[in-house]
Amino acid sequence: MKISVLSLFPEYFDPLLNTSIIKRAKEKNLFEFEVIDFRMFTKEKHGHVDDTPYGGGAGMVLMCQPLLDALASIKTENSTVILLTPQGKTFNQKIAMDLSLKEHLIFICGHYEGFDERIREYVDIQMSLGDFVLTGGESACMVMCDCILRLLPGVIKQDSSQDDSFSNGLLEYPQYTRPEIYDGKKVPDVLLSGHHANIKKWRHQKSLENTFYHRPDLLETLDLSKEDKIYLDRLKKNCDLKD
Amino acid sequence: MKISVLSLFPEYFDPLLNTSIIKRAKEKNLFEFEVIDFRMFTKEKHGHVDDTPYGGGAGMVLMCQPLLDALASIKTENSTVILLTPQGKTFNQKIAMDLSLKEHLIFICGHYEGFDERIREYVDIQMSLGDFVLTGGESACMVMCDCILRLLPGVIKQDSSQDDSFSNGLLEYPQYTRPEIYDGKKVPDVLLSGHHANIKKWRHQKSLENTFYHRPDLLETLDLSKEDKIYLDRLKKNCDLKD
Repeated sequence: MKISVLSLFPEYFDPLLNTSIIKRAKEKNLFEFEVIDFRMFTKEKHGHVDDTPYGGGAGMVLMCQPLLDALASIKTENSTVILLTPQGKTFNQKIAMDLSLKEHLIFICGHYEGFDERIREYVDIQMSLGDFVLTGGESACMVMCDCILRLLPGVIKQDSSQDDSFSNGLLEYPQYTRPEIYDGKKVPDVLLSGHHANIKKWRHQKSLENTFYHRPDLLETLDLSKEDKIYLDRLKKNCDLKD
Repeated sequence: MKISVLSLFPEYFDPLLNTSIIKRAKEKNLFEFEVIDFRMFTKEKHGHVDDTPYGGGAGMVLMCQPLLDALASIKTENSTVILLTPQGKTFNQKIAMDLSLKEHLIFICGHYEGFDERIREYVDIQMSLGDFVLTGGESACMVMCDCILRLLPGVIKQDSSQDDSFSNGLLEYPQYTRPEIYDGKKVPDVLLSGHHANIKKWRHQKSLENTFYHRPDLLETLDLSKEDKIYLDRLKKNCDLKD
């Protein structure tokens, strides 16, 4: 897997590559990563990459030429070009899994007011991180890269990612570590019991509960077992009784 | 506005503070920002902040003591404590606007497998950036800080943020800048006309169109004018004809 990022601020990505899990993965050459400053490609004599919008209005708009020339210089037939934009598909774990199987991802990070509309015609996927506005695409791109790189073989332990929130469609179960009692709050007895089957069952039920109370929308698309459905019905009845 | 971040990787936030718009805002003292490495607060003799989970399983879990002692050292009655977690409310522009009015935000960034469940009892808001899993909360926190700081008075031009996607509930209209023709693709005539009323109307209709085609869910919660409703009905009929 190779990731290329087109950005006016290449140094933005240093912490992603130099911290913790992703740093170790890079040292093991589990992926390639490059950031290309598309300002280097501008033909504008003062080095500008943006200009005022046609029709007037506040802010500056990124021009086609520098960005698209930079793109053309690195794109191959194996590249998937992703434009970060509020009108894109909302990024999620499923999309991250799909993208983690690609050979070469190219992310285009906008900045300032926006970019020339014609740039959209040169990309494969338009993607959004969520319903909010940023000063640029860089921080959103870091989040997506972190999420995708984490899924590459060898980056984290296999059994670690299988338990992730969203990976099996459910939120994760509660975790506890030492001490047994903190500020009067005790670890649930079952976790101290050493009874593996009971612990497994408790964790699965807590995952269902977390999802039911915090993100019931996630349950709608899941293919639940008969046992899970009975458990959820019981939770629902308890809620109705409280109402 | 002051933002404090509790993180094991303080250097992660350097690019946010040293780039472009947020950098200039920091130089103008429009906000205060600090990152506190909660490893400094651990009482564990080897300097550890995490431990294995009760009940077994992969990964390490952040302990209560270092994180909550760090929190206690900076929290005041004017603080809003935000924990980044997949089971939190999904961050959006409305939440960013609300948070941008607070006096002191404290973000808690987890890392590794997760954190001791008891930590949740010490926070005001549990927040998620979206339905995906990261190696840590740092990159998600950067996104939220960028979005919130951008909304502080003086950070960007007022009329710039009013046109943002999501700010009026709609996606933004298309923008174009020089040249008029790029790779055979021409800027729409109306934007070259100099007719301000027509440009305004065209942009509003394109905002409606973008939202209708890419994020129809956003339209459901909006209080639309009669004129907008008629325009959307016409778009809908065109779609039906094509089907």
